[in-house]
Amino acid sequence: LNRVAIVGTTTWGTTLALNLSRNGVPVTILARSQEEAQQLTTAGENSRFLPGAAFPPNLFVTHQLTDALEKASIAILAVPSQSFRKNLKWIKDSLPAESVVLSATKGLEMETGRRMSQVVSEELPDKLSRRYCVLSGPNLAKEIAEGKPASTVVASRSPESAVQVQKTLMSPTFRVYTNNDVVGVELGGALKNIIALGSGISDGLGYGDNAKAAFMTRGLAEITRLGVAAGANPATFAGLAGLGDLVATCSSRLSRNRYVGEELAKGRDPQEVLSSMDNVAEGVYTTAAALRMSQNLGIDMPITQVTYRVLFKGLAVKQAVSELMGRPPTTE
Amino acid sequence: LNRVAIVGTTTWGTTLALNLSRNGVPVTILARSQEEAQQLTTAGENSRFLPGAAFPPNLFVTHQLTDALEKASIAILAVPSQSFRKNLKWIKDSLPAESVVLSATKGLEMETGRRMSQVVSEELPDKLSRRYCVLSGPNLAKEIAEGKPASTVVASRSPESAVQVQKTLMSPTFRVYTNNDVVGVELGGALKNIIALGSGISDGLGYGDNAKAAFMTRGLAEITRLGVAAGANPATFAGLAGLGDLVATCSSRLSRNRYVGEELAKGRDPQEVLSSMDNVAEGVYTTAAALRMSQNLGIDMPITQVTYRVLFKGLAVKQAVSELMGRPPTTE
Repeated sequence: LNRVAIVGTTTWGTTLALNLSRNGVPVTILARSQEEAQQLTTAGENSRFLPGAAFPPNLFVTHQLTDALEKASIAILAVPSQSFRKNLKWIKDSLPAESVVLSATKGLEMETGRRMSQVVSEELPDKLSRRYCVLSGPNLAKEIAEGKPASTVVASRSPESAVQVQKTLMSPTFRVYTNNDVVGVELGGALKNIIALGSGISDGLGYGDNAKAAFMTRGLAEITRLGVAAGANPATFAGLAGLGDLVATCSSRLSRNRYVGEELAKGRDPQEVLSSMDNVAEGVYTTAAALRMSQNLGIDMPITQVTYRVLFKGLAVKQAVSELMGRPPTTE
Repeated sequence: LNRVAIVGTTTWGTTLALNLSRNGVPVTILARSQEEAQQLTTAGENSRFLPGAAFPPNLFVTHQLTDALEKASIAILAVPSQSFRKNLKWIKDSLPAESVVLSATKGLEMETGRRMSQVVSEELPDKLSRRYCVLSGPNLAKEIAEGKPASTVVASRSPESAVQVQKTLMSPTFRVYTNNDVVGVELGGALKNIIALGSGISDGLGYGDNAKAAFMTRGLAEITRLGVAAGANPATFAGLAGLGDLVATCSSRLSRNRYVGEELAKGRDPQEVLSSMDNVAEGVYTTAAALRMSQNLGIDMPITQVTYRVLFKGLAVKQAVSELMGRPPTTE
């Protein structure tokens, strides 16, 4: 029998916990402190990030590593990318030897530019690292918590581990596809947030669906170029973990990264927007990490460059837009 | 100096006329009757399809072939695909020998399954047919009429003609890219409407952005398969005339095809929905034509098949959805 531990009391971690426990899988969420575990248990829901979604009886919350991980066959990390390494170090010695570590994190480590699988192979013994899986796709958490239908992709170098995760997560409303392209699935989920920021800017400026669709098209081409240079399969970017996630994120009112862009279009300061949010907008860190990757790999990324300057160098949004639109169109 | 004739008083034809005349290009719209020409001229706008967008002084409307076409360097056909051939026959003898015929029609001839370029090569002399161009992309007409930014693609076997159209249509808010893949640009614009119908169904059923994004991803893969089998370049389907147009159409409240799907999801009868609309929903004819194409070319198109049965064979929408979602997911 599968038993799942979820590291992280984030919106997405809580949603996966709900989905699994509704599906009959025993789940334990690992909270950071006794207070947090107690608060969640007493409330019977995650009042901060997912109010109104009651925990089923087979969903437990603890702050004790052993309680959460001792019998876990799958350990899901659903934490912000900038604290992924710290969390791995924390749980490392409590992970059962046969467990599968599954990343539900969509981002890159800003300081190193590393993908989560790279962090895992640096931090965990090879035996665990070999079974690593990543989950990504068009998965706006709130819709899934409400039971609306969605599809996702689980990628691993270990086909057995991918199938194990697929069977565990699959439900009538949550379709899970497997894939062996870890690099592509990780980069698709991370890089699409750069394009979501720009889509939010387009929305904030009132540019309409034509302009946003054209921007998303150019954006997908740009992040696919980087992904392929980093070793990803281009087909992954045309699939659920690339195009699918991009479309959902750039379309939805629920996307935090799209929201940040919308606020930037109003002329607000990036730091002020970010510090006013209760949730992390991964796209900001990812933009910085992706720009460094693109420079190392020699890939031209005009959208990422301009977004970086808006976020970190004080470039005005209108100036950014006119730089991007000023590029002469020739052949497609 | 370019002088443009526009055949068709449709929303899109009128929008292109406005865009060109605002751009300083003299434009004449060819209406079907003296009454219609008079009505449009007197109103100084297209009250039926684009109310509130006043005609600039260099935009004329006539019902006389010679007045419209005699000095036209570019003749744009912006008519429904089912009347494209009839309109070609009508204007054929009035087209100047050196003119460029540009199709702004996004659809397939239902009876024959032909693309508009095939209709042109059957109806026009080779000298005109060789310069044929097609215009397609994420171009919701109302947004363009309002002056919102947009991009589009013009494709032709004649690079000179494509560049001539590009230079004529290009404006600060309307970016025109050229491409030599006539088949891909025509099929992208036509086939995406099948996916727009299904996206509308998804919206109508309240499925949310995750499900719609997954559907659009599968849909783009399906229409790309057909396009490539028909001789298109797969890159065209990843570009503005494929992905771009798909995203704009499936996202927008303005799309007629998406609207039809939304109404079908309410359980309304397809014929009743269509006959209640003032505008043509091209996707309905295109679904039938594409299904025949797919059978001739031996391509599996599950979405198109199910959509066809909903539109023409009385299949209930819920049954259609459960057939599509019931396919077991394996590897991506």
